Amino acid sequence: MKHLKPLKSVQLRGTGILDYDNSENQLFLEEERRMSYLGFRCLEISRWVVCGLIGFLTGLIACFIDIMVEQLTGLKYYVVKENIEKFTAGGGLSISLILWAVLNSAFVMVGAIIVAFFEPIAGGSGIPQIKCYLNGVKIPRVVRLKTLLVKVAGVICSVAGGLVVGKEGPMIHSGAVVAAGVSQGRSTSLKRDFKIFEYFRRDTEKRDFVSAGAAAGVSAAFGAPVGGVLFSLEEAASYWNQMLTWRIFFASMISTFTLNFFLSVYNKNPGELSNPGLINFGSFDRNVRSLCSFCQFLTASGLLGALFNALNYWLTIFRIRYIHRPCLQVMEAMLVAAVTATVSFIMIYFSNACQPLDVVQGEDYPLQLYCDDGEYNSMATTFFNRPEKSVQNLFHNPPGSYHPLTLGVFTITYFFLACWTYGLAVSAGVFIPSLLIGAAWGRLIGIMLGAALLGFIWADPGKYALIGAAAQLGGIVRMTLSLTVILIEATGNVTYGLPLMLVLMTAKIVGDYFEEGLYDIHIKLQSVPFVHSEAPPTSHWLTAREVMSSPVTSFNRVERVGTIVDLLSNTSTNHNGFPVVVSNANGEEPAKLCGLILRSQLIVLLKHKVFVELARSKLTRRKLQLKDFRDAYPRFPPIQSIHVSQDERECMMDLTEFMNPTPYTVPQETSLPRVYKLFRALGLRHLVVVDDSNRVVGLVTRKDLARYHLGKHGLEELQLAQT
Amino acid sequence: MKHLKPLKSVQLRGTGILDYDNSENQLFLEEERRMSYLGFRCLEISRWVVCGLIGFLTGLIACFIDIMVEQLTGLKYYVVKENIEKFTAGGGLSISLILWAVLNSAFVMVGAIIVAFFEPIAGGSGIPQIKCYLNGVKIPRVVRLKTLLVKVAGVICSVAGGLVVGKEGPMIHSGAVVAAGVSQGRSTSLKRDFKIFEYFRRDTEKRDFVSAGAAAGVSAAFGAPVGGVLFSLEEAASYWNQMLTWRIFFASMISTFTLNFFLSVYNKNPGELSNPGLINFGSFDRNVRSLCSFCQFLTASGLLGALFNALNYWLTIFRIRYIHRPCLQVMEAMLVAAVTATVSFIMIYFSNACQPLDVVQGEDYPLQLYCDDGEYNSMATTFFNRPEKSVQNLFHNPPGSYHPLTLGVFTITYFFLACWTYGLAVSAGVFIPSLLIGAAWGRLIGIMLGAALLGFIWADPGKYALIGAAAQLGGIVRMTLSLTVILIEATGNVTYGLPLMLVLMTAKIVGDYFEEGLYDIHIKLQSVPFVHSEAPPTSHWLTAREVMSSPVTSFNRVERVGTIVDLLSNTSTNHNGFPVVVSNANGEEPAKLCGLILRSQLIVLLKHKVFVELARSKLTRRKLQLKDFRDAYPRFPPIQSIHVSQDERECMMDLTEFMNPTPYTVPQETSLPRVYKLFRALGLRHLVVVDDSNRVVGLVTRKDLARYHLGKHGLEELQLAQT
Repeated sequence: MKHLKPLKSVQLRGTGILDYDNSENQLFLEEERRMSYLGFRCLEISRWVVCGLIGFLTGLIACFIDIMVEQLTGLKYYVVKENIEKFTAGGGLSISLILWAVLNSAFVMVGAIIVAFFEPIAGGSGIPQIKCYLNGVKIPRVVRLKTLLVKVAGVICSVAGGLVVGKEGPMIHSGAVVAAGVSQGRSTSLKRDFKIFEYFRRDTEKRDFVSAGAAAGVSAAFGAPVGGVLFSLEEAASYWNQMLTWRIFFASMISTFTLNFFLSVYNKNPGELSNPGLINFGSFDRNVRSLCSFCQFLTASGLLGALFNALNYWLTIFRIRYIHRPCLQVMEAMLVAAVTATVSFIMIYFSNACQPLDVVQGEDYPLQLYCDDGEYNSMATTFFNRPEKSVQNLFHNPPGSYHPLTLGVFTITYFFLACWTYGLAVSAGVFIPSLLIGAAWGRLIGIMLGAALLGFIWADPGKYALIGAAAQLGGIVRMTLSLTVILIEATGNVTYGLPLMLVLMTAKIVGDYFEEGLYDIHIKLQSVPFVHSEAPPTSHWLTAREVMSSPVTSFNRVERVGTIVDLLSNTSTNHNGFPVVVSNANGEEPAKLCGLILRSQLIVLLKHKVFVELARSKLTRRKLQLKDFRDAYPRFPPIQSIHVSQDERECMMDLTEFMNPTPYTVPQETSLPRVYKLFRALGLRHLVVVDDSNRVVGLVTRKDLARYHLGKHGLEELQLAQT
Repeated sequence: MKHLKPLKSVQLRGTGILDYDNSENQLFLEEERRMSYLGFRCLEISRWVVCGLIGFLTGLIACFIDIMVEQLTGLKYYVVKENIEKFTAGGGLSISLILWAVLNSAFVMVGAIIVAFFEPIAGGSGIPQIKCYLNGVKIPRVVRLKTLLVKVAGVICSVAGGLVVGKEGPMIHSGAVVAAGVSQGRSTSLKRDFKIFEYFRRDTEKRDFVSAGAAAGVSAAFGAPVGGVLFSLEEAASYWNQMLTWRIFFASMISTFTLNFFLSVYNKNPGELSNPGLINFGSFDRNVRSLCSFCQFLTASGLLGALFNALNYWLTIFRIRYIHRPCLQVMEAMLVAAVTATVSFIMIYFSNACQPLDVVQGEDYPLQLYCDDGEYNSMATTFFNRPEKSVQNLFHNPPGSYHPLTLGVFTITYFFLACWTYGLAVSAGVFIPSLLIGAAWGRLIGIMLGAALLGFIWADPGKYALIGAAAQLGGIVRMTLSLTVILIEATGNVTYGLPLMLVLMTAKIVGDYFEEGLYDIHIKLQSVPFVHSEAPPTSHWLTAREVMSSPVTSFNRVERVGTIVDLLSNTSTNHNGFPVVVSNANGEEPAKLCGLILRSQLIVLLKHKVFVELARSKLTRRKLQLKDFRDAYPRFPPIQSIHVSQDERECMMDLTEFMNPTPYTVPQETSLPRVYKLFRALGLRHLVVVDDSNRVVGLVTRKDLARYHLGKHGLEELQLAQT
């Protein structure tokens, strides 16, 4: 096995792992056993209420973003269009250019400043971060209120600033933050505790709600509730839980319905619910005959996607190395905004893609420029539009609306601009740019085919644009199931399912051969211990003995406080879970496993000074309850902040009540795929490896599994950041 | 806890449990380790090919059924219509009635005879059986070729025979059989072994393919590929496997596409793919304003569903007791067919629901009867149609097409007929009748509301029909996620998602209060150990110690053949999995666990006489390979058929190589929900319970978990059939 060098990586401080396995200690079991059937019913109902709220709020946020973007871009295009028309005849269009570039840069500056200076984690689409969260890796500050505010403001600014970005990706992150906030019934940032939903204050429940939030985000972004559910499942689900999935679906439905309703009201036709998502593909007819020859996409799609990803990878490495100061990041973002405006302007200026005005209906900002009266510049239209509208136009405008050269130039320009833009310190998604690039080259191929075959096959270029868009998007993000369903729902036509699926599959296979998916690249650059859904196929020859961390630091059932404090303070090991053991009488052999206790639990115990001696002396002392753990969740104090006096160090702590007495264990000979399956299916964080007498011999953590990776030369071992 | 009396049940002989956890013994690991990366690639590709084939064949079968039914019913209606028209003026309509009843009974007789005499398991919709299979319980003969043939022929006969049934449910069963057949690369019935796909000859792989087959069946039936995937996941998935889901989706897509393509060719407009499923709801507009007042459905839906289920439950009990001889079953089916025809005829005869002919377009068999010229009898239309077409009519015919009284009478008649029909010894589904009943009363409510509110709300009765149909279906089958998605896909409009979801949820909640779902009732009547997706909420106070079977029969690592044979022959225990233990030196304490071996593995070992003594004497003896186990799969011979001589009984068998050395274990204190989760997430069949020194103290099997059930009086314990 090759031991690869560690990737250059952003070392994320304080990355944590979520515990998806309940610590079933005595306190927990007592609470559960005390709870009546009615109590469980009430809990279930509150879960539904929370999911409904998540959906509603996510829908509202999507609606807010959409309206704000529409207003701001409307204003901007109006000003620029007026200006261009003023200067077209008399010359001096450079003033228009400067105006445009300055307007864009100003918007982007605001967006970049809030991201770079206030909350860097709100940059980008947020999808890699949410993928990590759902996978079980918690990136710090990713689900905080502040992140949400910066995200929303940031995405409005960057879209209004004319960057080659979409507002869809950030919706997924926004939904997740909403979920994490609503479900906890309190806001640590606002220092308010509403004393509700206290039961949900643990990783297991919170992650379930975040899944619902992410699904609601997808649902609002694309009007694809089922796609949202599948996105969450694809990324999160280990153990398929029927009721949970049903709740996630509920949140998604509410989300798309809320958005739909409010946008309809905003567009002054309430009841005519025609805006299920931030982007609508419009409806296609069912004739897919013309797509019989879509084979030409099959390799192109993956290649273009892989190229995009590779370029973006090098760019990101460059950024990590040289552009890490916030002010530099803001300047880069402004530069990109200005360049985008300039490039667009130059292309509009030099193109003579004049089209008669009557072909297209409902063009918001037709720009005449140097075209004849009654004509408009089609290149200008593509740039002078909200990108969602441009995608729709590419799908649905009748044959002949676009000049092939326009499309070719547009594809190339947009490709490089989008690639440069992704990874800037602004909130922005990559879905819409990908769709736009793909739709442009798809339509181009459609036109060329139509010309080449002289009508042998009747090629509707709009359908080719759809397939191209899917191919490009699939080649970049490499999502499979959820993306297919999202696209089917966005087109509203199941007939396109098979072609879309085949294209996405090929894009993934071809793309994977060259380069990973964009999100995976960014996840890997953060070197988080991401556990994929299955063990690499050729890993049967590895066993638990080889992958486990050993020796293991373990505690006795009744342990000296000093020992615990010292072990927790030891920064070199920084373990999070500790087996609890019972020593033999003679104390020679390794001791038998009797439980597992977490760092966070120990910290709460230390903070409340739950020591045997103190319990004896003060008989009235309140017994520690689950509530104390919940109040401390999720921001457990670091061990350094807990003061333990020298006398207290000699006290003893009885862990029996607080440890999980039935941790999952495996024998040493268990093969890696088997360990992997157990780990992933149950969402574990620690798996104790025992010998044939139930004595602890090692501990498998998430990092031990995430190391193994199937590279081009077989199984490889990655180096991961310390967590 | 109340120990309930066992339910009256059909004791299914030989019901088996599927093993969804690979037995990772030395043979298996050696094979996996020998396999190169390319080998795994090839396997993966063949999985895709198999899924494609499954989808294609399932689509073809759906297409065949559809065309056959259309031809036969067309012929029947033509004959009867001619006859009625001949006798309308002159009197003597009783002859028409007899003709109709005889025609129907003849079709149904054929359908009932093949089911009752040749393959009783092919009766009904097959969905309960497939639910069981996907859950891990194998009902004998459920996925055999003969079952498929009888199923297909039976469903054609029963639909053509005018029974109140649908052809959608059986498609799911058909898809599953296709999958089980294709994936094994051989047919035991035809005695052909194609020597391909040998790797897939085990429960794990086979169940995966059967999931794909069931999904393909749903997909073909409703044109709902995503719904199909979710159906399979809802019923089967324990461990969410991304690639598997993606393959299931592929099979579904291929299936609907195949059906669509061939039906389009059959309807002579290839390319215009407009038949994605056996039933199409047609397209609705997006205005859901008129549904604001759909609250009245919310309780009605569940109540009607529960009533249906309760009636059917009593009927089924009656049938089990008194109508168990095949000839009686055939006669009952014929009786129902004759009664259905008679009732329909009487209703047509006495109704004067005349409607002008031009209102409805494309009515296939408009019957004038006693109406004026230029009018037709709308009641006749509802009965004189393929039920799929009637559903479409109820959804889409303009307001005023139906007389309220017609609808009321139709609802009541159809309700009782459908209830009587489900459970007959014919292949038939309950989806379409449910939709039809629901659509009728939904439309009725729509009309009454429109009249009552005098146009205050503009009520399109067709939309009410849709909601009513969903409510009725949901109230009967109580599927949640998958049914919502199926209906969304069938309507092709995500806007109806939220209303549909709310109605289905309420139907389920209200219905569950009174009676279980129809499929669950039938599953329970077969008293199979069905493990639901979650443990009952109030079961935290039960631990593994209480649920496990104890004492456990276990073997030594090297065991005497006689002991093994005697234990396997012991019919009173009839265990399927045996822990393998290593005794201590003194042999007093319970021995330590070192593996787990299955009955089927022992039988193969006995059959090949893998005895230590023989291995020593004949050095050239071929080593037993995985292939030998695969060849015996899935019909392992019973122990009685294996002859072991008296000498051989004294030989020893070394189980080391064949046992699974790393079975999953839990400590005795593990709570039931934790055991349940492990069991369900990993699809286990046996879970060994050990003490703190890894000594076997018990074994948890599927039956131990399936016993616990949340009834109206808290946790209840069921009695299950011996498996």
